[in-house]
Amino acid sequence: MPTKITPRAQDFPQWYQDVISASPDLYDESPVTGAITFGPLATKLWGNIKGYLDHHLKAMGVENIMLPMLIPESFFTREKEHVEGFAPEVAVVTHAGGAKLPEPYYVRPTSELLFVDWYGRNGKIQSHRDLPLLVNQWCSVMRWEKRPRAFLRTSEFHWQEGHCLFADEASCRKHTLAFLDLYATLCEELLAIPVVKGEKPEHERFPGAMATYTIEGMMQDGKALQMGTSHMLSQHFLMDSDGSPRVSFLNEEGKQTVPFYDSWGVSTRLLGAVFMSHGDDDGIVLPPFLAPVSTAVLPILAGDAKENEKIRSEARKLAGLIADSKEIPFALHGREKSFEELACTSCHDGVSSSVRIDQREGVRLGDKTFQQIHDGTPVRIELGKKELEEGMCMVKSRIRSRDDAKKVPLKDAAKEVANMLEEDQKTLFERAQQRMEKNTLHASSYDEVKDALATGKWVEMAWDGSQKTVEQLKAETSGGTIRCFAFDAKEDAKKENDPLSGKPSAFTKRVIVGKAY
Amino acid sequence: MPTKITPRAQDFPQWYQDVISASPDLYDESPVTGAITFGPLATKLWGNIKGYLDHHLKAMGVENIMLPMLIPESFFTREKEHVEGFAPEVAVVTHAGGAKLPEPYYVRPTSELLFVDWYGRNGKIQSHRDLPLLVNQWCSVMRWEKRPRAFLRTSEFHWQEGHCLFADEASCRKHTLAFLDLYATLCEELLAIPVVKGEKPEHERFPGAMATYTIEGMMQDGKALQMGTSHMLSQHFLMDSDGSPRVSFLNEEGKQTVPFYDSWGVSTRLLGAVFMSHGDDDGIVLPPFLAPVSTAVLPILAGDAKENEKIRSEARKLAGLIADSKEIPFALHGREKSFEELACTSCHDGVSSSVRIDQREGVRLGDKTFQQIHDGTPVRIELGKKELEEGMCMVKSRIRSRDDAKKVPLKDAAKEVANMLEEDQKTLFERAQQRMEKNTLHASSYDEVKDALATGKWVEMAWDGSQKTVEQLKAETSGGTIRCFAFDAKEDAKKENDPLSGKPSAFTKRVIVGKAY
Repeated sequence: MPTKITPRAQDFPQWYQDVISASPDLYDESPVTGAITFGPLATKLWGNIKGYLDHHLKAMGVENIMLPMLIPESFFTREKEHVEGFAPEVAVVTHAGGAKLPEPYYVRPTSELLFVDWYGRNGKIQSHRDLPLLVNQWCSVMRWEKRPRAFLRTSEFHWQEGHCLFADEASCRKHTLAFLDLYATLCEELLAIPVVKGEKPEHERFPGAMATYTIEGMMQDGKALQMGTSHMLSQHFLMDSDGSPRVSFLNEEGKQTVPFYDSWGVSTRLLGAVFMSHGDDDGIVLPPFLAPVSTAVLPILAGDAKENEKIRSEARKLAGLIADSKEIPFALHGREKSFEELACTSCHDGVSSSVRIDQREGVRLGDKTFQQIHDGTPVRIELGKKELEEGMCMVKSRIRSRDDAKKVPLKDAAKEVANMLEEDQKTLFERAQQRMEKNTLHASSYDEVKDALATGKWVEMAWDGSQKTVEQLKAETSGGTIRCFAFDAKEDAKKENDPLSGKPSAFTKRVIVGKAY
Repeated sequence: MPTKITPRAQDFPQWYQDVISASPDLYDESPVTGAITFGPLATKLWGNIKGYLDHHLKAMGVENIMLPMLIPESFFTREKEHVEGFAPEVAVVTHAGGAKLPEPYYVRPTSELLFVDWYGRNGKIQSHRDLPLLVNQWCSVMRWEKRPRAFLRTSEFHWQEGHCLFADEASCRKHTLAFLDLYATLCEELLAIPVVKGEKPEHERFPGAMATYTIEGMMQDGKALQMGTSHMLSQHFLMDSDGSPRVSFLNEEGKQTVPFYDSWGVSTRLLGAVFMSHGDDDGIVLPPFLAPVSTAVLPILAGDAKENEKIRSEARKLAGLIADSKEIPFALHGREKSFEELACTSCHDGVSSSVRIDQREGVRLGDKTFQQIHDGTPVRIELGKKELEEGMCMVKSRIRSRDDAKKVPLKDAAKEVANMLEEDQKTLFERAQQRMEKNTLHASSYDEVKDALATGKWVEMAWDGSQKTVEQLKAETSGGTIRCFAFDAKEDAKKENDPLSGKPSAFTKRVIVGKAY
């Protein structure tokens, strides 16, 4: 049965809540303030993102390690900026092993301070030959959240955090940007979400960073979502407050030198981005390349036992053909089957999609269909008595009109599905790109700025560099913020004035302003 | 340079510490009491175990989810047995988000209580059609450890915990044992460690379990290591203390019924098992099927630049041949190379091994060799000027005598390596199996029991079922414990007497007694 979903145009936040609740395998509330349980579907989606990214990181020479989840409080208190940024949201372990601890631990909100401790152990970087040191960890982190929103802001979330050391600043900056490029490719290729790459203004930097680079995506309500960041930390964190090095190496000239440091991460927030970027008034929509199940085969079992078995058997054959043609395995659906009968859905958390058959009896086609629609499954195939007699099946795309069902000969179904998946992946990206282009306006007067932000658009404008403009924007446009200096923006802001203050632009580039999640 | 390693015969615990320290990429101490950082090599080893197990679990129909890492204290206090088992070792979060919490959270030591909470949400199991519900999570857990030993006992460790619900007791028991079987196959096939499968005596059960099944491996010092457990929890945890159900479903007869529950897990402790089962007086030894790098190619670069480049080029060609023949990628070794030159080592955390070339100049062959020996790399290939002139290379196995080096034509090297890897995997398993068989003795007198335990052996003996025997064993044999009732033991204990008490056996089967980690 269709779940009631508030239309996007009526109330976008409620729509988001409705669509993620309509897919029962996505998430559940938990007894931990602001934290959710990631259900089987969300875990697979994150697994596919992880598989894609980990593959590319390993190709870049990055190795994974696993640090403890706790960090001594004193590590934070010696880093003023860092502790001010994170102290209000950390969870604190004060007791362990049946006793009060001499020093509390923070559950990691991010692990810079622990990586720096690790770099210094057992002579990891003695000479320039030991650099670059490229390491990453996949884990969850905790930042206490009183106003949570599933996937977008939760007290605990999953991410990867890369932490690398380099021999010099140029190499550090180059690689900081290379990791940002990888994130942008991930969003565009896998998630079908175009992003703007850019640099954050100083007041939006990661606590302790020399530069923070960002990728920003536009959601369907016109709001910006920061989808990943890469921080040039320089020599920050690597020296004590008196300037003495915590980590150093012998450079090519034989001089003891402090290396350069960057850190970079993307998180399960990306799932929220996928839902808010592609979902429609029927539910979430998964990009075909990301979807754990790309095709659902729905046999119509309305006859007697013998007839149903024939349809089921043909459905299995069809699913096998489709799976083979993409070299992907397929799975039977339905917990009523004992698990020995379930085929392997996916060998690992790499990017792979599979075909699934919903062969439950006693469940109406309409209900099976709505389950797949709510789960965002890219393609559905219906196969009943009538179709079988004609040697045909009905192939339907999640993102095309419902009247757009194609009647396809069984022998051609695999090819039809493969084409549909590729085309739909492309369509989703193009739709999102057109939306972003159409809704990004250049504004030279404050009225234009206010109008644009009030109607869910992004604004390109000159900025005088003042905090006054930043505060005025926030207060008078219900939350407009400077998202970034876009890398590919033209250097044409220098003759323009800040539309709020009327003062000349402090930069050669305009900034992008938008409301944000 | 060889690191000094205490011989096993002299001091086994010190040997263990020495070999895991001699491989610099295995682990580091951390600033968290009893917790370690898992280095790149340990993370890859765990990744390979995870890849193997996750593949087989998915084939059995198990889906992964991700629950929060915190559990409200009240969840524990309502489970008397469970809280008594875990309270002494949990880490407690008392503050979060800048304030004292109304109720503390425990960092999960295991997640039964959270899974039970999750089962009850959003109508997950309404009818018998929703069962079995087969779910698992990969995560780390925390059990505060004041006497840690890297990989064997650490305050934080990584594991998987499966938590499944079934419609009836028979189905639950069958699957509880099926998961144990999978663990045994993992140990034997991948880790080359034979295990005894059996049931724990009542006093060794998981807090709250109706039956605990175990796999026990024998380490080189004759001690037992519990390598994995599967718990038949029955309806425990699923009902309040007054018997009212926390979770129930409508069974086939239309009656509201409480399901049956099992949980099962293996952890990073398995890495300790690998090191203690196969290591020798030179360092750790990795089973070829588990090793992230199966073959290290060591070019001997002792000539001029032109000559060295020729040798390096042939080494790369050779590595490519070997990698191709096993359909595995290869990687260049050495951080002095910028990362763009590094090839992909492995696409994902599945079981795969790769070929690595150590082409550093200015590092002696002896030092490169010892690094590979300390890292437990299964096969090394040396290639220098002399070998190249003859069209040959030297192939050496980690586990065979050092005089056993084979001079092999370059064109045959790939085949030789493949054979060697397969044979060595088999040899490691057979050695461990012979050790276990040779060192398991039947004892009918208390003197025999004491002698056997004092000389690092396991004992099969009749048990009268009393705690007095359990305590006497522990006190008088420096820690002997009942490991299990082995599944494959003969039912011949019923006419025997407990060698400690002289009283008749309470069971048809003997128990296995050993000292344990």
